[in-house]
Amino acid sequence: MVGSCRQCDQCTNDLENYCSKMILTYSAVYTDGTITYGGYSNLMVADEHFIVRWPENFPLDAGAPLLCAGITTYSPLRYFGLDKPGMNIGVVGLGGLGHVAVKFAKAFGTKVTVISTSINKKKEAIEKLGADSFLVSRDPEDMKATAGTLDGILDTVSADHPILPLLSLLKPHGKMVLLGVPNKPIELPAFPLITGRKLIAGSGIGGMKETQEMIDFAAKHNILPDVEIIPIDYINTAMDRLVKSDVKYRFVIDIAKSLKAE
Amino acid sequence: MVGSCRQCDQCTNDLENYCSKMILTYSAVYTDGTITYGGYSNLMVADEHFIVRWPENFPLDAGAPLLCAGITTYSPLRYFGLDKPGMNIGVVGLGGLGHVAVKFAKAFGTKVTVISTSINKKKEAIEKLGADSFLVSRDPEDMKATAGTLDGILDTVSADHPILPLLSLLKPHGKMVLLGVPNKPIELPAFPLITGRKLIAGSGIGGMKETQEMIDFAAKHNILPDVEIIPIDYINTAMDRLVKSDVKYRFVIDIAKSLKAE
Repeated sequence: MVGSCRQCDQCTNDLENYCSKMILTYSAVYTDGTITYGGYSNLMVADEHFIVRWPENFPLDAGAPLLCAGITTYSPLRYFGLDKPGMNIGVVGLGGLGHVAVKFAKAFGTKVTVISTSINKKKEAIEKLGADSFLVSRDPEDMKATAGTLDGILDTVSADHPILPLLSLLKPHGKMVLLGVPNKPIELPAFPLITGRKLIAGSGIGGMKETQEMIDFAAKHNILPDVEIIPIDYINTAMDRLVKSDVKYRFVIDIAKSLKAE
Repeated sequence: MVGSCRQCDQCTNDLENYCSKMILTYSAVYTDGTITYGGYSNLMVADEHFIVRWPENFPLDAGAPLLCAGITTYSPLRYFGLDKPGMNIGVVGLGGLGHVAVKFAKAFGTKVTVISTSINKKKEAIEKLGADSFLVSRDPEDMKATAGTLDGILDTVSADHPILPLLSLLKPHGKMVLLGVPNKPIELPAFPLITGRKLIAGSGIGGMKETQEMIDFAAKHNILPDVEIIPIDYINTAMDRLVKSDVKYRFVIDIAKSLKAE
């Protein structure tokens, strides 16, 4: 986010990300009429309000995706009260968002269950990212054994997928937050929501104040996304690999190095 | 509700209504193996924990539906923080639940918009029940003019109906609570939830502590459901009229009078 109206209820409450005139860092029209190119730019000018103070000695390259994946997962964990030590938090999908969600949820002192369609990511989730357990959503026995145990779920998956089995994992009063946007609408029966007072919500990035708080928290707890640094001329290959989910977990373009290489 | 396990996390937190062993007042199996008949019984024995202290001079007949419609609407208004003076609250559907929702929401000092498929109920909603405004959900212009203005919505409708237009009425961070159970699952796109951090939830009756609080609040503010008192031998006619929604708003069987008549 590089701009917003600065006057509405959202803006005056540090929630510029929910301003109806919010300007995205990428593929939006800036106040001067130019198009924003985000991480593909060699430079970008923005009002200082939309600039984050970067902590000393905190890597800019690996830290870069925190400004999307970081705040996108940090904000709902805070807002929905899913940041209390000892809580059981589920993270659906282990990609760019999911792996950062695991790191923040662990730093908050919660017990994290990674939920994925495939067992393949189990070792990575537990040994590398520090998740406490791993659940294969296609395994009915596994799902049954975990039913009613989670306080909250961050669902980071953008592919169409059934929500009802995930809702069954929540305790009464449990909260499920959608961060990905599947193509098709979710099919949501009212009954399980009513009998367990469960809720399903969405959340998108965060305001500037909270983004700064998130970056400071990340620096303090040494939370960094796992990234693959690439030069700009690798971008088409990177795109092909993205489509195949062949990246752990975010590509970061080293613009300074790319410019030097020119 | 006439029973629950009294030991689980829900029961020990005054949320017996979310206990997995909760015993409903009607059509459930009681601890002694008998079937509960609710308001059709000439008497019912329950543990004192599940008995409500009735306020003096508060009518038992008109007050009876508070133990369902009252607590079902009071509890979510409280739990989801939709009880702050000056808030804008929508109530979808003006039936047994909806008309009581309007009364509680008004007593909390909120501004109430009744949302209905038909203009027919406007006069009743505003003049009789005290709603501040009335919105016809099938009128696109009306809906557009109200978009983004509500802090919360209680949806009391059990018939299948589209949810997306109702979500558009919510402000960012707005909350929609489902109290009715439509046959078909709701079709819920993730995008409007994410861009406005909105949530959709369910809620079912309330715990005994909150039920007592609700009854005391209702007595203090003179909140009574509108009822039609009938003798038991009118029940089949009442059922036929219920199917046609021909009741304002709840039938209450006068058991004492019915027994005397025998």
